[in-house]
Amino acid sequence: MARAQSRSAWKVHELFATPTALARHADLVDVADSLDVAVTTITDDAMKTLSQTVTPQGVVAVCATLDATLDEVLRGAPTLVVVLAEIRDPGNAGTILRTSVAAGATAVVFAGDSVDPYNGKCVRASAGSLFHVALVRGISAATAIDELRAAGLNVLATDGAGEVGLDQLIDGGMLTDPTAWVFGNEARGLPGAVGGAADVRVRIAIHGQVESLNVAAAAAICLYASAGAQHPGSRMS
Amino acid sequence: MARAQSRSAWKVHELFATPTALARHADLVDVADSLDVAVTTITDDAMKTLSQTVTPQGVVAVCATLDATLDEVLRGAPTLVVVLAEIRDPGNAGTILRTSVAAGATAVVFAGDSVDPYNGKCVRASAGSLFHVALVRGISAATAIDELRAAGLNVLATDGAGEVGLDQLIDGGMLTDPTAWVFGNEARGLPGAVGGAADVRVRIAIHGQVESLNVAAAAAICLYASAGAQHPGSRMS
Repeated sequence: MARAQSRSAWKVHELFATPTALARHADLVDVADSLDVAVTTITDDAMKTLSQTVTPQGVVAVCATLDATLDEVLRGAPTLVVVLAEIRDPGNAGTILRTSVAAGATAVVFAGDSVDPYNGKCVRASAGSLFHVALVRGISAATAIDELRAAGLNVLATDGAGEVGLDQLIDGGMLTDPTAWVFGNEARGLPGAVGGAADVRVRIAIHGQVESLNVAAAAAICLYASAGAQHPGSRMS
Repeated sequence: MARAQSRSAWKVHELFATPTALARHADLVDVADSLDVAVTTITDDAMKTLSQTVTPQGVVAVCATLDATLDEVLRGAPTLVVVLAEIRDPGNAGTILRTSVAAGATAVVFAGDSVDPYNGKCVRASAGSLFHVALVRGISAATAIDELRAAGLNVLATDGAGEVGLDQLIDGGMLTDPTAWVFGNEARGLPGAVGGAADVRVRIAIHGQVESLNVAAAAAICLYASAGAQHPGSRMS
């Protein structure tokens, strides 16, 4: 239970669980009790409704939202930040959140009209990672890019027509620097003004007969290119 | 319309479209006519049912299934093959299909109890890429691995507890060789016997507080590591 007692625990206000889940996760109830978090038993049907899923895992936690401001993020001198520019699909957004944390990013900015990070499907796709990254909302992609650049980060935006290939960036060593990656809308790609505001528009080579990558797949490729450059220790371990 | 007249065109038996879509894609009707493919106009409601989506794009094609055998695939001396071992989520499977084609893979094996590649959600997530890769079904992951290795491919399986890091594989040059990547089930990971049958179990470094990656994100990272090694030309272009 070390994880439940860490940084994220104090953000839980209340727990709801089915009898089956309570029996299976007795340790969770102990932790909740020790933190004065109320635990309420509910029926399987109520759980389906509450969790918005057909086969819920049986536990729902009511948590405080976790927003940070970009100023707070930048005071921590981040080396990897992710900006979602009009990402609308909650599954994509949650998957990018999960990949961002795995790649060592310290913040994800849900810019402009991006999906709500607390959308149930986004939370589930994030697989708990949203508790381990600073979430920034309520600013435009343009403002985020300006502030990130002013703080000294290279701002890279994925774009199928980008002027630099990702492989060139890797070989050129640029990815070792503090970096902000900007990912655009699933259907429309990056808004022109947003792409223009980035330092470099980066294309991922396509070797087969498909026009583009899924945005969460593209994000995984870019973020792990950065992780490989910023954490060279992992190359030896 | 070059694409519609290419390799995939002859596989279309019949088209259904809404009046709006017909007006928008008049060129598609011309191609269908030239290939003696029947076009039937249907209502918006019928389209919603037929396409299994709330906001359909307005055109549905009835196509022949596209299965190949692994023997046929291996006769083409493939350099990149993907094996899905018990991947159950159609969105994940379709996204991996799309990424596989983009990375230059020539075949995707839906092994064992993996989802049906012709599941509507998988087809949509593949974004048309399933027409540009050999699909193999009806064999177990174990059989696929045996045959791929016998044909001279390195068989690499992603595994959170793998003995070799992906970055080490990249640095060691192994990814330039013909490679088959094996990706396991979303919840349970790789079946033990399948992981044991691979030449190398590969772990992707996790730099933050999350246990694992989404399988489609992991596949994107691995497949683009292979693409970067097998297509060094893209590093210069």
